[in-house]
Amino acid sequence: MNELFDLKKHREEMNKKIFYLQNKQINRLFALDTRAYLDGELSKKIKELLGLISSLILRYDDCDKYHMIRAVQEGCTDCEISETLAIGLIVGSTITVPALRKTEDILSKLRETQSKG
Amino acid sequence: MNELFDLKKHREEMNKKIFYLQNKQINRLFALDTRAYLDGELSKKIKELLGLISSLILRYDDCDKYHMIRAVQEGCTDCEISETLAIGLIVGSTITVPALRKTEDILSKLRETQSKG
Amino acid sequence: MNELFDLKKHREEMNKKIFYLQNKQINRLFALDTRAYLDGELSKKIKELLGLISSLILRYDDCDKYHMIRAVQEGCTDCEISETLAIGLIVGSTITVPALRKTEDILSKLRETQSKG
Amino acid sequence: MNELFDLKKHREEMNKKIFYLQNKQINRLFALDTRAYLDGELSKKIKELLGLISSLILRYDDCDKYHMIRAVQEGCTDCEISETLAIGLIVGSTITVPALRKTEDILSKLRETQSKG
Amino acid sequence: MNELFDLKKHREEMNKKIFYLQNKQINRLFALDTRAYLDGELSKKIKELLGLISSLILRYDDCDKYHMIRAVQEGCTDCEISETLAIGLIVGSTITVPALRKTEDILSKLRETQSKG
Amino acid sequence: MNELFDLKKHREEMNKKIFYLQNKQINRLFALDTRAYLDGELSKKIKELLGLISSLILRYDDCDKYHMIRAVQEGCTDCEISETLAIGLIVGSTITVPALRKTEDILSKLRETQSKG
Repeated sequence: MNELFDLKKHREEMNKKIFYLQNKQINRLFALDTRAYLDGELSKKIKELLGLISSLILRYDDCDKYHMIRAVQEGCTDCEISETLAIGLIVGSTITVPALRKTEDILSKLRETQSKG
Repeated sequence: MNELFDLKKHREEMNKKIFYLQNKQINRLFALDTRAYLDGELSKKIKELLGLISSLILRYDDCDKYHMIRAVQEGCTDCEISETLAIGLIVGSTITVPALRKTEDILSKLRETQSKG
Repeated sequence: MNELFDLKKHREEMNKKIFYLQNKQINRLFALDTRAYLDGELSKKIKELLGLISSLILRYDDCDKYHMIRAVQEGCTDCEISETLAIGLIVGSTITVPALRKTEDILSKLRETQSKG
Repeated sequence: MNELFDLKKHREEMNKKIFYLQNKQINRLFALDTRAYLDGELSKKIKELLGLISSLILRYDDCDKYHMIRAVQEGCTDCEISETLAIGLIVGSTITVPALRKTEDILSKLRETQSKG
Repeated sequence: MNELFDLKKHREEMNKKIFYLQNKQINRLFALDTRAYLDGELSKKIKELLGLISSLILRYDDCDKYHMIRAVQEGCTDCEISETLAIGLIVGSTITVPALRKTEDILSKLRETQSKG
Repeated sequence: MNELFDLKKHREEMNKKIFYLQNKQINRLFALDTRAYLDGELSKKIKELLGLISSLILRYDDCDKYHMIRAVQEGCTDCEISETLAIGLIVGSTITVPALRKTEDILSKLRETQSKG
């Protein structure tokens, strides 16, 4: 799917800019962020749902899209995703609605690509 | 006014996407949100000002515009709106300034339309 | 009511401490905060409801209690207050629940005092 | 465990106070909140971890403790919990640290009770 | 640099719109905001770094860019800026990353202009 | 000063509890947090003011007190501190007032100890 490809490329370019600052603490925090989502006792799939709900609640758009794509890649069903979004909406309130809409938009594009592929 | 019409249409389309998720909890929360702004002991006008200040403080742009349009529809004067925004600015701080600017922008467009109409 | 008296006294003492810092910007912001709730086109009563919902949403306990007491002093009914809290809960989500509980606690104490008085 | 019992009792009493307000929207939101954590495609266990990370990120202490207790009741291991907390800390930053400490405190008390029981 | 010029012009125009509301409390808060960044015991340079970290943490984009430009004007080095951003990232978490990227983008443009000038 | 001693002891004990979770990502983030405040191009003193304003804005009480104590240890004057707090109050709004009061309280205790010492 092109959108996934573009988002990845955009993230890589932006991250390069940050690495240009050559600040060790910043670079290490980026490394930690990556490692936290690897398989552990919790599967990558569940960890992506944890990342999804966290970004939804903090209205962190870019990250939200990323975790949605990753959750679908790890095999989450629509129902598993919407149950996660429902908890996010109830804990995070109606202020998460715009993020919720964008998230749903990505999901329907991903499903379209899958049914074509 | 076209802007009001477009905003309503956009909200309806986006909400349809969310209903497509067929999650009962999500749908019920949307219904609650609608009902909370109906006439009660507080008038719809005052409730829209309460919605306006809440979205301003949480920097929730889409919702902010919506409540501004609704407040004007319910007959709020410029002065009632700016007194509401002033409390929002003082409680919510300078981080509400960008939302404040966008809100004021909608207000001046609405007034222009009214003076022409 | 003693609780109102104590809260006022506590606020005055704490504010004196802040004034001791002798920083003009800080002192001026405090003065602005006071003036924003005076009668204008919107009544003091409505302004206190705007203050109440704002502090509820930002989970700002002290200020929340203060605006609840002031709202009751300005003659708000239980129903006007609960309609305000309902909008606060829906916009601000379940994270406002602890503040909501404390707020309701103050309200019932205030009503008790009034029925005795 | 007494702490669980006390927390449940406290929540029930506080919620009664809120129901006394007799506001339909408020009561319905409480009902939604309960239903969102029931078994669905995602298990109750995973839903409690989603609730735990959400309350941690929003620094919502009471709710955090509650979901920790529920997560342990649903059979989560220490490692599953700490992997959840790690994502919460990285997305939610060092401002979640006080909540993280309190959460860990509850966890060690729960484990103590289990090893005695 | 054109970007600085455009940003200044944009801010002035938007602020004019807000002044049109003729609300004294709003206008006074704007005046306070300006005065807080003037030389005091802390230099303007340090105050701009304080403004930069505050807007980064609150993800307040417009203001963030403004303080970055001002920090460079006051003679901050790349290293002083990245040390400030590192603290901002650690206190404010990965949700500040998009703001961090935009901030870094402005910085590299400012440096480019300086090396040409 | 005893309060500093107690706060340090409390932090150490609480942190031990977190290390007991033996989660690498959590432990590494704690290490990053410590390193970010060491001397660099910006002095430790300025970094503590950056930490102080960040915790004030996020209403992170424990951390706020800690940075206040550290700022005084690094030789900050009352005026440097109040200029920092003023920017924090204007960017972070009146919701920072309770944190501001607690912060000022610590400051006056620290000054008392110094004048006795």
